[in-house]
Amino acid sequence: MRISELAQRGGVPLATVKFYLREGLLPAGTATSATQAQYAEEHVARLGLVRALLGTGGLSVATARAVLAAVDDPAIAVHEALGAAHRAIVADADVDPPDLTEAREHLRRWGWRVHEDSPALVYLARALLALQAAGFDASTELLDRYAHAAGALGTQDVAEVPTTSTADAVRFVVIGTLLLEPVLLALRRLAQEDASQTRFAPPQN
Amino acid sequence: MRISELAQRGGVPLATVKFYLREGLLPAGTATSATQAQYAEEHVARLGLVRALLGTGGLSVATARAVLAAVDDPAIAVHEALGAAHRAIVADADVDPPDLTEAREHLRRWGWRVHEDSPALVYLARALLALQAAGFDASTELLDRYAHAAGALGTQDVAEVPTTSTADAVRFVVIGTLLLEPVLLALRRLAQEDASQTRFAPPQN
Repeated sequence: MRISELAQRGGVPLATVKFYLREGLLPAGTATSATQAQYAEEHVARLGLVRALLGTGGLSVATARAVLAAVDDPAIAVHEALGAAHRAIVADADVDPPDLTEAREHLRRWGWRVHEDSPALVYLARALLALQAAGFDASTELLDRYAHAAGALGTQDVAEVPTTSTADAVRFVVIGTLLLEPVLLALRRLAQEDASQTRFAPPQN
Repeated sequence: MRISELAQRGGVPLATVKFYLREGLLPAGTATSATQAQYAEEHVARLGLVRALLGTGGLSVATARAVLAAVDDPAIAVHEALGAAHRAIVADADVDPPDLTEAREHLRRWGWRVHEDSPALVYLARALLALQAAGFDASTELLDRYAHAAGALGTQDVAEVPTTSTADAVRFVVIGTLLLEPVLLALRRLAQEDASQTRFAPPQN
């Protein structure tokens, strides 16, 4: 198909497709003349992925490029691909690294083994600091409860990684990690709304 | 204390405090002369909250102002304050509203009662669309598993809302909703890393 059809199929303006091509987020098509190229179904799929990462995923162009490089690398190991996805949300991790002591103590209590400079560990430490700064006293019981729920999800996520091919596994890990996050947050809020309805809302007719 | 001490206590530049004051995120101090004002401990606490909402919370100044208005409103009901926190992440909800049919069907299956135009419902629908666009097939089993974990958290979150005063309840709801989200995401990633270490990482010496 031509670039105009690719844009239409992806539901984006032509200029957006050209931008993705220029930024290396979308692979070039097969040149059919000096000014034209043909695109295939895989381009439509990749266009959807790029939109999801930049939109709901909230990634910058540079971070999306790094994540896609992990998806495309035929030699990358699954564990490293997970790391690439995890680094996507802590691109500023090196700027002003927080004290990891408290976060590491929680991990020890839960028996979780992670890299000592894990991006997710830095992210947790930052999130705990923000709670403290906001004057919210997150008790050990509360954090244990969140760890229990998150632990069940994360463990099952990894158990479900397909072993059909490394490419499938990496794709599952990277996309599942990033794009199930807004799903999880939305579900917690919906559960809160349902419970709040019962506990706090005035009775309706 | 003077404004310079407030900035120092809050760990931010003086210009940032002045910006928060101008934007109405921080209440004015008590004027002691035409050019000076005194600030109290409550300003230090509010400064921490504002930093947390704008930083880790990722809110815009306008959204943070709306959330703080809910925290400060002595007459607001707890259920409405939860709504204000939930609206904070879907400020663009009216632009291009997604089809809510699929998301509503899931809610029906879980027996969750939410407002038909709930911001969290819009957020869920968007997140599900992004998964589809990225070519990730989220099975009903997977979504049920996420709903189960999120349901346990959301229900307990609401059960723990303090009843000492409406102000305490609203503060707990708004801050807990927004600032526990990065904690939850970090914990899921750490659990993934721990599980991935076991399943995929090469053995270490």
